[in-house]
Amino acid sequence: MRKGELTRERIIAQAAPIFNTRGFAGCSMQDVMEATGLEKGGLYRHFGSKEELAAEAFKYALAGSKRLRTDKVDRTHGAVDELLAVVRRWVEAPAAVAGGCPLMNTAVDADDGNVLLRKLARKGFADWRERLCEIVRAGVERGEIRKKTDPRRIANTVIAMLEGALMMSRLEKSSMAMEDARASLEELIERIRT
Amino acid sequence: MRKGELTRERIIAQAAPIFNTRGFAGCSMQDVMEATGLEKGGLYRHFGSKEELAAEAFKYALAGSKRLRTDKVDRTHGAVDELLAVVRRWVEAPAAVAGGCPLMNTAVDADDGNVLLRKLARKGFADWRERLCEIVRAGVERGEIRKKTDPRRIANTVIAMLEGALMMSRLEKSSMAMEDARASLEELIERIRT
Repeated sequence: MRKGELTRERIIAQAAPIFNTRGFAGCSMQDVMEATGLEKGGLYRHFGSKEELAAEAFKYALAGSKRLRTDKVDRTHGAVDELLAVVRRWVEAPAAVAGGCPLMNTAVDADDGNVLLRKLARKGFADWRERLCEIVRAGVERGEIRKKTDPRRIANTVIAMLEGALMMSRLEKSSMAMEDARASLEELIERIRT
Repeated sequence: MRKGELTRERIIAQAAPIFNTRGFAGCSMQDVMEATGLEKGGLYRHFGSKEELAAEAFKYALAGSKRLRTDKVDRTHGAVDELLAVVRRWVEAPAAVAGGCPLMNTAVDADDGNVLLRKLARKGFADWRERLCEIVRAGVERGEIRKKTDPRRIANTVIAMLEGALMMSRLEKSSMAMEDARASLEELIERIRT
């Protein structure tokens, strides 16, 4: 990697927790300059605008969280156990970058605002939903999950509950909401097992 | 009400959707001045700081949402149907002030930030959880809900799922996630019926 690219990568990695913690409006280019030790000119050489940097920071944070949530998830015991493992993993390690789930933060931050960030967050949720749907569909095909199960309902239920519970747990600085959400998701997921 | 109090109330009502939509960092006193048509001096006569105004705007938005979510909910068919009515009401009318649920917005906005707003959001969730727990406890006492039901788990599950689904539905501009969350909550709630 060339030096310019390395600097660019370093800026993104250092900006990601700031944007994820403070939100788009709450993070200024001045904040990023202070965190990276770069001058204004140095920063704008790599990113044309705050929006461009925020988008790269979001992608970086999301990729980290995705790795954390899917790496080494046990896929050897069938689809139902894979769904349970996804839930367990989230409860144990919800986010890779300081500030919580980048998807939720960006969704709430950008639902009435920044168009590019909203588009990226929508794609993030759509991809996640599709991955979960795929687990359910494969489970139905292999006879591990009941035929009448709606993959989309399971996927949306898992995502909504985990995101909502993370939001509460972070606010309350307590794992209570996460543990309760996990118990309810386990109950729902066990019921689709054949 | 005196004129000064009326002005104060009007400022709060006009600031609430701005703070709820843009977040604390994304809403300036300048924005509020423009929305209210007041000069800086006029605004600061009523509120000592942006934080004070944001706190009042949050309380106003939360009170509106609470009214919307609890007014005329049918309590005549027992605890299980009351829980189902709470879910249905949320799906049909999730928030009273533009920008979505003030609790979630403030939670995500303030989880790493503003201490006063975080405290108010925590209290908002605690109150909501307690209201739901009370419905479950009354249902157990009247023999409508299974004895082994954990009121807190039901309450946290309902709140996490509704908040998470609202976040997704707002981002996707689609009721899909809300409808799926509703179906899953109905399944879980029906299972605690005696």
